[in-house]
Amino acid sequence: MKCTRCRAKAEVHLRAHNAGFCRPCYLGFFRRHVERAIAGEHMCTLDDRVLVAVSGGKDSLALWDVLVELGYRTTGLYVAQGIGGYSTRSQEKVEGFARQRGLALRIVDLADEGPGLAVPDVAASTRRSPCSACGTLKRHVFDEAAVTGGFDVLATGHNLDDEAARLLGNVLRWQVDHLARQRPVLAPTHPKFVRKVKPLFLLSEYETAVYAFMRGIDYVVEECPNSVGATQLVYKDALNRLEAASPGTKLSFVREFLRGGQAAFAAHAAADEERPPNACARCGMPAWGEVCSFCRLVAEVERKRARRSGGPAA
Amino acid sequence: MKCTRCRAKAEVHLRAHNAGFCRPCYLGFFRRHVERAIAGEHMCTLDDRVLVAVSGGKDSLALWDVLVELGYRTTGLYVAQGIGGYSTRSQEKVEGFARQRGLALRIVDLADEGPGLAVPDVAASTRRSPCSACGTLKRHVFDEAAVTGGFDVLATGHNLDDEAARLLGNVLRWQVDHLARQRPVLAPTHPKFVRKVKPLFLLSEYETAVYAFMRGIDYVVEECPNSVGATQLVYKDALNRLEAASPGTKLSFVREFLRGGQAAFAAHAAADEERPPNACARCGMPAWGEVCSFCRLVAEVERKRARRSGGPAA
Repeated sequence: MKCTRCRAKAEVHLRAHNAGFCRPCYLGFFRRHVERAIAGEHMCTLDDRVLVAVSGGKDSLALWDVLVELGYRTTGLYVAQGIGGYSTRSQEKVEGFARQRGLALRIVDLADEGPGLAVPDVAASTRRSPCSACGTLKRHVFDEAAVTGGFDVLATGHNLDDEAARLLGNVLRWQVDHLARQRPVLAPTHPKFVRKVKPLFLLSEYETAVYAFMRGIDYVVEECPNSVGATQLVYKDALNRLEAASPGTKLSFVREFLRGGQAAFAAHAAADEERPPNACARCGMPAWGEVCSFCRLVAEVERKRARRSGGPAA
Repeated sequence: MKCTRCRAKAEVHLRAHNAGFCRPCYLGFFRRHVERAIAGEHMCTLDDRVLVAVSGGKDSLALWDVLVELGYRTTGLYVAQGIGGYSTRSQEKVEGFARQRGLALRIVDLADEGPGLAVPDVAASTRRSPCSACGTLKRHVFDEAAVTGGFDVLATGHNLDDEAARLLGNVLRWQVDHLARQRPVLAPTHPKFVRKVKPLFLLSEYETAVYAFMRGIDYVVEECPNSVGATQLVYKDALNRLEAASPGTKLSFVREFLRGGQAAFAAHAAADEERPPNACARCGMPAWGEVCSFCRLVAEVERKRARRSGGPAA
């Protein structure tokens, strides 16, 4: 197969785009896709200060890389979750990436936050699933780091497969409120929120993997050990089968949703007027109750730990 | 496993309902499900004359059987498509079913209609796919038979798997107009349409197969040879995988769509006011253009056949 742009030998074949690319043209294709997503959805400008949430995986490091290439003012943010060797290895990849390129990186270690909030400890003391605890903790750290650091935008590496799987999950249960809000740009609904953007939302997992490989990005290949059996993976598998039978299915599913389908939900949800969040009575960050979900989780951890140390075993 | 109702030995286990049933209780479960679907969606009453479209497969014969059991006034309608041995065997099953039970059955042979409309001939002379030709022909025959026979309702055997696959297809492409209309009851939009209902829409393919087996219904097991590779089967496969990972997925996908999701599309579509169909200038049946899609297809067949017989080979 030949490169669709320059007729050189193609290194990658994209069935969804019915196109093939040599290495330089593929990198150009990928960058243009990100540029167009950013411009088309008004995600950010070259003047914005962008905080990039990085996990050490291919998507977030490819995102950071391409944003730097495109001239954005970026700082990386890594949240150390304390999930054994997986977290150690992820952090090494992120630190190596930033060091090699001379990029600014912030690291928040959950074990040092509040009463000690490493994901496995929080999950064990509250009996929540590690993924639920991790989601609450990470969201809070992202939001707080973005606002206290004076950033304009928080960028995450969610790709097309992530967005399509999330959309499928929302559709299978017809979660109309979630469908009304699922967009690649989330406008801040509170002064302590910054804009959240997903510049890779139209690029597949395969496409970001190829980009990361071609750019020589050294990323952590293993998945988080807690993700085994996650529903999201079942959705991704189903979508991959649909994609194999009809290339382009994932792309049109997400794109046509944003172009056409979503308007119906947005209009429907607008009817029951959305309430902006309050300020959390404990930490001042946005909260839908009196206290934000992060502070509720912290309080639960403190309560459970106090009970245990005061119990019969102490 | 024991029967959820009577504690006898269960013969069937329904993971989606987290229940097991012995034979008599399963038949009761199935009938109640159909009764509730009919009542809940106002499909028909015991006074209505119901035309049941039967193909010889398990779904339509199970539907006819259960409607008779529930006391409805039914007549069967079989459309002979002329698809070789498959059609011959299907017709035998339908005739056997009606004869054994002393039920009224109408047969329309497409080969005897208009200029001769057996599906393979129409597909060959118009170069349409057999499934597209068959759809247009069957819809017309169903509608015409229902209105000329003075029926109040046309019932088809579409099951949960059919409805879920159709819904998934509409959602993957975000066909908002189709989503606005996809319901188990279609109200007539023209005096020559009758109400169309799908009483099995909440019962899975597996559940109708078990019902047909337990009731000793002799149905054609083979699928239409033209269905090989159909997109619908890819959707069903994807949904079956989601169902295996999380039993009840198909049921909640269709049910929650009707309960919540669809309202958004219906409101959205209502905005661009729906035009009722005209009368077809050729046959008088409902048409969205000047001539209905059936008469357009017939005209195309006639034109192509005339050209061929007047061409150089003649």
